[in-house]
Amino acid sequence: MTQIKLFCPATIANLSCGFDVLGLCLDNAGDEMIVRKVDQKGVRITKIVGADLPLETEKNVSGVAALAMLETLDTEFGFEIEIYKNIKAGSGIGSSAASSAGAVFGINELLGRPYSRKDLVQFAMQGEKLASGNAHADNVAPALLGGFTLVRSYAPLDIIRIDSPEELFATVVHPQIELKTSDARSVLKQTVSLKSAIMQWGNVGGLIAGLYTKDYDLIGRSLHDEIVEPLRSVLIPGFDLIKQTALENGALGSGISGSGPSIFALSRGKETADKIAKAMSEVYEKMNLPYEIHVSKINPDGVRIL
Amino acid sequence: MTQIKLFCPATIANLSCGFDVLGLCLDNAGDEMIVRKVDQKGVRITKIVGADLPLETEKNVSGVAALAMLETLDTEFGFEIEIYKNIKAGSGIGSSAASSAGAVFGINELLGRPYSRKDLVQFAMQGEKLASGNAHADNVAPALLGGFTLVRSYAPLDIIRIDSPEELFATVVHPQIELKTSDARSVLKQTVSLKSAIMQWGNVGGLIAGLYTKDYDLIGRSLHDEIVEPLRSVLIPGFDLIKQTALENGALGSGISGSGPSIFALSRGKETADKIAKAMSEVYEKMNLPYEIHVSKINPDGVRIL
Repeated sequence: MTQIKLFCPATIANLSCGFDVLGLCLDNAGDEMIVRKVDQKGVRITKIVGADLPLETEKNVSGVAALAMLETLDTEFGFEIEIYKNIKAGSGIGSSAASSAGAVFGINELLGRPYSRKDLVQFAMQGEKLASGNAHADNVAPALLGGFTLVRSYAPLDIIRIDSPEELFATVVHPQIELKTSDARSVLKQTVSLKSAIMQWGNVGGLIAGLYTKDYDLIGRSLHDEIVEPLRSVLIPGFDLIKQTALENGALGSGISGSGPSIFALSRGKETADKIAKAMSEVYEKMNLPYEIHVSKINPDGVRIL
Repeated sequence: MTQIKLFCPATIANLSCGFDVLGLCLDNAGDEMIVRKVDQKGVRITKIVGADLPLETEKNVSGVAALAMLETLDTEFGFEIEIYKNIKAGSGIGSSAASSAGAVFGINELLGRPYSRKDLVQFAMQGEKLASGNAHADNVAPALLGGFTLVRSYAPLDIIRIDSPEELFATVVHPQIELKTSDARSVLKQTVSLKSAIMQWGNVGGLIAGLYTKDYDLIGRSLHDEIVEPLRSVLIPGFDLIKQTALENGALGSGISGSGPSIFALSRGKETADKIAKAMSEVYEKMNLPYEIHVSKINPDGVRIL
């Protein structure tokens, strides 16, 4: 095999109470990528369709992730990468993570899988470092592993994959505004009250328990963010109304996807997720705000071969 | 049935990262209690053996818990309670919770179970309020439900019971010093760094995941308390050495039980738990500090009829 075509999924990180640790993988929102094994050593980005992103390997997240991986391997081959972007940069659903994860997954396949999917996370994180200055794993982990992922620790890196209950669906609406990551970061406070922190880790515990026991109500009761959402949501037009609309239409919970501006809702069953999508759309249509919307089951596999 | 004899188990609350939310039930450390149904209405504490505690119903935690429960029921009966204390007050392994939980469990049995065990938590919490000024549930919940319990939320009260992996054992050492709850509280800070809080809820997620998947290593990797242990452990003589000794002898993790001064270690298998008990004992013997020590499997049932 010298060429592989991939689906590189979008992901939701900062899942309510699971700020910085908990993410999930979407199933029908994502990019495509072709990775080709060639004789000329090194990594080249040969084509990018759908986004204005740098072709230089060292400036492209998939290039950087691929190089980080190849540094650890003794291979006589090189790789070419074609990227077909559907996920908009800055949307808050893991655009850079999809590319970083796709690149290392594709190369790993073409080299006969020297690494496990979990091993690949550390390399994909280097793409995230280029994109945001921070080698975070909460998008690349679900993109590579599928389902839900918990980043328990960074030092050492410890990632736990959790199956999603089968009927769980996500609705994600992306209002087409620019929200700079630096702005989303600058509103965070470096200290939090012990009381809020305790409520937050109580909810993290409840959410993880709900996932393992497939208790949809418990998942819903646990989907609260005491700490970050109150600060960041003011940067997202219509956030409160979108969230309220989702809950009124049967969502288990709703919150900011990544650092925004996308807003997600989780629900039980596709019918409810579709109903929520319709109701969210009406909100942004009344506001005359352009938006994109996705309804997706949770992707159990992560990056996959097309 | 007009009389019931109970085992009222000791419990470990504030389980490392699960400060204020996570507790477990011990199996062979606890009090005994006799609850008797009588014609004279009201609740009377007729005997207390092994501790100098008030006999007046309104000043006794089991009396207060019983009264809180009986207020919600229309019964023609009254109840007498005899308490045989083995758990020392102030030990940090849920002495008051054992009495509160036992009283409401016993009355519930004698009345033909109008309430579920989970329902009883709210009444037992009133005993805790008398004991500590705070109607906390993190000892009474495991005392009533057994296994591990997560207090996800207080408003509304939401308690999740989690089975313990079968080979999990606890070693608990109680150095015989007085540690006032007020002192243990006064060292807490009302704010914490966001960074520490994120590590803490990552570990809570890991611990819950480890319990559901019976992954002993993950349980061990998650048993860290970034926030409270560093502040409180200085109040407990020999804490660092006891903890280090436990880990060197194979403990999965170790920390402060409740608000101290007891120190717990969790381990896989009774053999390791016994070895840890022996090593902990040697530490306190060298320090000439009197102590009590318990080795217990996790009690899957909570309060039980003898």
